[in-house]
Amino acid sequence: MSKPVIGIIMGSQSDLKVMKEAAEFLEEMQVPFELTVVSAHRTPQRMADYATSARTRGLKVIIAGAGGAAHLPGMVASFTTLPVIGVPIKSSNSIDGWDSVLSILQMPSGVPVATVALNGARNAGILAAQILASDNKPLAKKLDNFKKSLQKKVEDSVRIIEKKGWKDI
Amino acid sequence: MSKPVIGIIMGSQSDLKVMKEAAEFLEEMQVPFELTVVSAHRTPQRMADYATSARTRGLKVIIAGAGGAAHLPGMVASFTTLPVIGVPIKSSNSIDGWDSVLSILQMPSGVPVATVALNGARNAGILAAQILASDNKPLAKKLDNFKKSLQKKVEDSVRIIEKKGWKDI
Amino acid sequence: MSKPVIGIIMGSQSDLKVMKEAAEFLEEMQVPFELTVVSAHRTPQRMADYATSARTRGLKVIIAGAGGAAHLPGMVASFTTLPVIGVPIKSSNSIDGWDSVLSILQMPSGVPVATVALNGARNAGILAAQILASDNKPLAKKLDNFKKSLQKKVEDSVRIIEKKGWKDI
Amino acid sequence: MSKPVIGIIMGSQSDLKVMKEAAEFLEEMQVPFELTVVSAHRTPQRMADYATSARTRGLKVIIAGAGGAAHLPGMVASFTTLPVIGVPIKSSNSIDGWDSVLSILQMPSGVPVATVALNGARNAGILAAQILASDNKPLAKKLDNFKKSLQKKVEDSVRIIEKKGWKDI
Amino acid sequence: MSKPVIGIIMGSQSDLKVMKEAAEFLEEMQVPFELTVVSAHRTPQRMADYATSARTRGLKVIIAGAGGAAHLPGMVASFTTLPVIGVPIKSSNSIDGWDSVLSILQMPSGVPVATVALNGARNAGILAAQILASDNKPLAKKLDNFKKSLQKKVEDSVRIIEKKGWKDI
Amino acid sequence: MSKPVIGIIMGSQSDLKVMKEAAEFLEEMQVPFELTVVSAHRTPQRMADYATSARTRGLKVIIAGAGGAAHLPGMVASFTTLPVIGVPIKSSNSIDGWDSVLSILQMPSGVPVATVALNGARNAGILAAQILASDNKPLAKKLDNFKKSLQKKVEDSVRIIEKKGWKDI
Amino acid sequence: MSKPVIGIIMGSQSDLKVMKEAAEFLEEMQVPFELTVVSAHRTPQRMADYATSARTRGLKVIIAGAGGAAHLPGMVASFTTLPVIGVPIKSSNSIDGWDSVLSILQMPSGVPVATVALNGARNAGILAAQILASDNKPLAKKLDNFKKSLQKKVEDSVRIIEKKGWKDI
Amino acid sequence: MSKPVIGIIMGSQSDLKVMKEAAEFLEEMQVPFELTVVSAHRTPQRMADYATSARTRGLKVIIAGAGGAAHLPGMVASFTTLPVIGVPIKSSNSIDGWDSVLSILQMPSGVPVATVALNGARNAGILAAQILASDNKPLAKKLDNFKKSLQKKVEDSVRIIEKKGWKDI
Repeated sequence: MSKPVIGIIMGSQSDLKVMKEAAEFLEEMQVPFELTVVSAHRTPQRMADYATSARTRGLKVIIAGAGGAAHLPGMVASFTTLPVIGVPIKSSNSIDGWDSVLSILQMPSGVPVATVALNGARNAGILAAQILASDNKPLAKKLDNFKKSLQKKVEDSVRIIEKKGWKDI
Repeated sequence: MSKPVIGIIMGSQSDLKVMKEAAEFLEEMQVPFELTVVSAHRTPQRMADYATSARTRGLKVIIAGAGGAAHLPGMVASFTTLPVIGVPIKSSNSIDGWDSVLSILQMPSGVPVATVALNGARNAGILAAQILASDNKPLAKKLDNFKKSLQKKVEDSVRIIEKKGWKDI
Repeated sequence: MSKPVIGIIMGSQSDLKVMKEAAEFLEEMQVPFELTVVSAHRTPQRMADYATSARTRGLKVIIAGAGGAAHLPGMVASFTTLPVIGVPIKSSNSIDGWDSVLSILQMPSGVPVATVALNGARNAGILAAQILASDNKPLAKKLDNFKKSLQKKVEDSVRIIEKKGWKDI
Repeated sequence: MSKPVIGIIMGSQSDLKVMKEAAEFLEEMQVPFELTVVSAHRTPQRMADYATSARTRGLKVIIAGAGGAAHLPGMVASFTTLPVIGVPIKSSNSIDGWDSVLSILQMPSGVPVATVALNGARNAGILAAQILASDNKPLAKKLDNFKKSLQKKVEDSVRIIEKKGWKDI
Repeated sequence: MSKPVIGIIMGSQSDLKVMKEAAEFLEEMQVPFELTVVSAHRTPQRMADYATSARTRGLKVIIAGAGGAAHLPGMVASFTTLPVIGVPIKSSNSIDGWDSVLSILQMPSGVPVATVALNGARNAGILAAQILASDNKPLAKKLDNFKKSLQKKVEDSVRIIEKKGWKDI
Repeated sequence: MSKPVIGIIMGSQSDLKVMKEAAEFLEEMQVPFELTVVSAHRTPQRMADYATSARTRGLKVIIAGAGGAAHLPGMVASFTTLPVIGVPIKSSNSIDGWDSVLSILQMPSGVPVATVALNGARNAGILAAQILASDNKPLAKKLDNFKKSLQKKVEDSVRIIEKKGWKDI
Repeated sequence: MSKPVIGIIMGSQSDLKVMKEAAEFLEEMQVPFELTVVSAHRTPQRMADYATSARTRGLKVIIAGAGGAAHLPGMVASFTTLPVIGVPIKSSNSIDGWDSVLSILQMPSGVPVATVALNGARNAGILAAQILASDNKPLAKKLDNFKKSLQKKVEDSVRIIEKKGWKDI
Repeated sequence: MSKPVIGIIMGSQSDLKVMKEAAEFLEEMQVPFELTVVSAHRTPQRMADYATSARTRGLKVIIAGAGGAAHLPGMVASFTTLPVIGVPIKSSNSIDGWDSVLSILQMPSGVPVATVALNGARNAGILAAQILASDNKPLAKKLDNFKKSLQKKVEDSVRIIEKKGWKDI
């Protein structure tokens, strides 16, 4: 299981600081992935090539992050029938993130993008793993364990507050 | 392939007029699904039961639609590691749909919901089929054909406008 | 009067810096309360248990704070008929707080949440005390005194400005 | 139990079509209430009198609805320590309801208003009853039954869809 | 001309850093004014007294600044027929200033507030002077000179850019 | 008192259905006014002439209404030191009125516009009369009577509800 | 001058009712244009072909209209250095038009789109003609005449109101 | 080719830090331009003179940047039939940039402004060059090279990530 099954792409190298959280989660889950920069507006042909070849290259899910008038996730989705997960990124000069959220979310009928929260790259990674886990019991098991770890962190907080008292945290 | 693999749920019977578009698409693709009403706020136990039993019952994706302070998709996602697709619905008294969009999209780290456009139930159905098609070549083929049909509709429009002229449409 | 009558809960330990203002007010009023972390998305069962047992454990009001797609207040309200006060929290990656405000405020008919201002935990504490004071004259008296202290602070400002002059403040 | 314990007020007679839903719920619960028009901007003295006398007249909760720059709930709260429930109303010339929502919700520290959803008068009635039920077991019982009726309506929808099929509704 | 003809009020001492710009402009124009703190929510009676006595005390215009659910300008306007100028203030915990803008601007028919830009206290001072200048030729002359000074500042910028070049500024 | 002292202008004839409410109020108060169409974008020279001659022609206040990117009120204010009242109009293709509200409200320092609510032309008329009434006791008296009539309408509503009952209105 | 110099494209035939206003204006100005449907999401290859061949086919400006997550204008701009004018269209299920406005306006550095108002197709046609008129004196003359006709319409309104009186329109 | 063909203007000297990016791009392309301050609100006559003389002075495009209630681009467009490019600027006290975006974008029918992204001055410069390049092959060639340089930067990022690995950037 070492050929990439998830493709993580982003519109600009500056998006990496957000998007690496998707990669980190997939690494934790030992899901092989590839990560690169593909710009809808600056390299449209590269984007078309990336998207049209994705399924035959073995990818099963594409995660695409972009800011501003974020066209990358939707355009990738126009070239492939693989599930595309879109990550709106709050870039500088963004209008509070609304531009990337709406540019990714409000896709027309026929061409869906699975949109996650603003800057929600880690959730994009989790969602990609959940999609793979449909037919992959060991991965489903890992995701169950991850879910339990979330619960455990809450329980840890409960104990910390009980021990230290709410005033001293 | 007749046991449901997709669960379509919605917070209220009044959401059916939007959500049935997901069902219609899955029917076109011959993907078996189930459809029912599950309310996060009025039947929280039913929701927990539905979500926790989903994977063992054979579901691979859950599509959940809700309006206003739409908690159904996110709460279902808290109980299962199946991919959950959220459909924001513009209900009466909604603040222009912003409430359901943000209540579904802005999930915290660890618990993703794959959000589609406001009232985008058809896209939710398509996305669910795309997820299944990862490991299902005949379905992937059908989705390719569907994608071609979208293209053909545009080409039909092109011809109509050429023939009739833009003034007379 | 030492058994908790108010429950203060929040979705994450990081919300404590906002939510402790509710606790501080109740302490000033000598209203016994409990405070802990309960996450709708990471510990849904703990949340259900907390909410369904709240009335029999002696709680009369629940204050619940959460950020982003804030489901905690509304889901707690779905499990109990105690009054639930919701505190929208402006977390990092929030879309300017709109997400938590709308996720808490726009509850469907049948399941109200008493929403206060963004980050308005202190007001949540005051509102909880006001609810208790319906049938508690000494507490009502304390709230009257608190109200007078608000007025006095304004009168102090008036005197400061009169004495120092508006230019030198 | 026939002296009013809830006061329902609204800024204008035209708000009655929204606000009567609060009255209807209280009537269902057999909670005695009074209902009248009090305008913050057109009858400020009447408002001050109403609010300052409310507790001594036996009221335990005030429900106040208003649209636009909705000052009634917040100003009533400035005159009394009773819990005040605010109902934002989407009036004509409202900017999509944002004006009344924000004018009621964003109260300063010290003077809370328990805000419900846009046009959520029925929820205001339910919340008022929940506040009274803190120390009123028969009313708490009625609210439990009401909660069960909400659940039953969902279950009815489930059966209707099962029987008729989702296509024929 | 030394009895105050303009009253500048604000909801909290912390608003002074914004509101003093109104005072500074009136001082430049030698228009006598008074400045104090009046809180709609914490000192409602003081507010009513201030507003109802304003005309008889010789005031001709009231400038009122407030943040959040800003009720001060509108409530003052409910008590007097003097023109009231409202200054929305972007306070901490404000939802980007939208709350104070809409709470002041969207007054119901019958009770206008002359709203200026967010934090626009200087413009409130200018507007107040313009109102007085209707029947005061020397003041109208001063305002003309002020207008010319605005123009002159632009002309200075033009010369600076011409001299230094746009790259070196 | 028959020479116009108020100028009512609007960007387009289609704005008249909103703006005539300003005229109607001034007529009720017997304040002489003129009303015409002046477009910032289609007749900029006419606008400049109107604004620069306004004071010498005897006007004391200008009321300007416009929709969309509403530049009329602010540009008129750039040409005169008379107080300018701006009325944002919700035209077709407006983005919910936000465009005209923000284009009028957010004027830069130095050039204020007294902005009223969306479509609030009647309030613009009232505000204009209040400005004139600074130095006009009979008009101030009329405005007091108008204020009382607002109060009386509320009192009438109170009686109607008392008599008919809230259910039957 | 009969070979098209302007290309008008739109994402869907349903956009024609808005976009035909661009065509009508160009026809009035006798500027030759072509009009067709090109969908970024349904016919991405057709879009790439259209945009990359545009300059060599003799086009000088492209007008592109789209709704929702409107990617057509921006993607066309990624393939050509011709000026691209974007028309945001308020389609059904749009979130009040914000989605198309922000998806078109907020283009990243390097790839501009000249955005006009929501549904502003006529202005797109005018802007395209203005661009051509840079080096085309007869067209510049026509645009001057068009500008005068706008002015004349205002002057006509002025006369109508003078003659009929503002009450009777 | 040394007489200015592009005019870059801005409402205030403080806008220069944003607007100089337009100048820098034109300098790179060796397109002669002029740059100065012209305020719609503080120097309306200078603005009218600038705009009406622009075409005869040899300008072919005007780039106008302004913040807040940004009237400069639209008013310049009212005086000339040259294409006007508007740059919304996010100034202090702006409401998140929405005010300048909507004041520039939402122009009425008949008077277009080519609006670019918030603070998008560089894109305004590119768009201006694209307009000139309609009839200027050498400039079109330079723009093609610029477009290729955008693509090259992406390709450089791709190599950097490949070489260093995504973790170490």
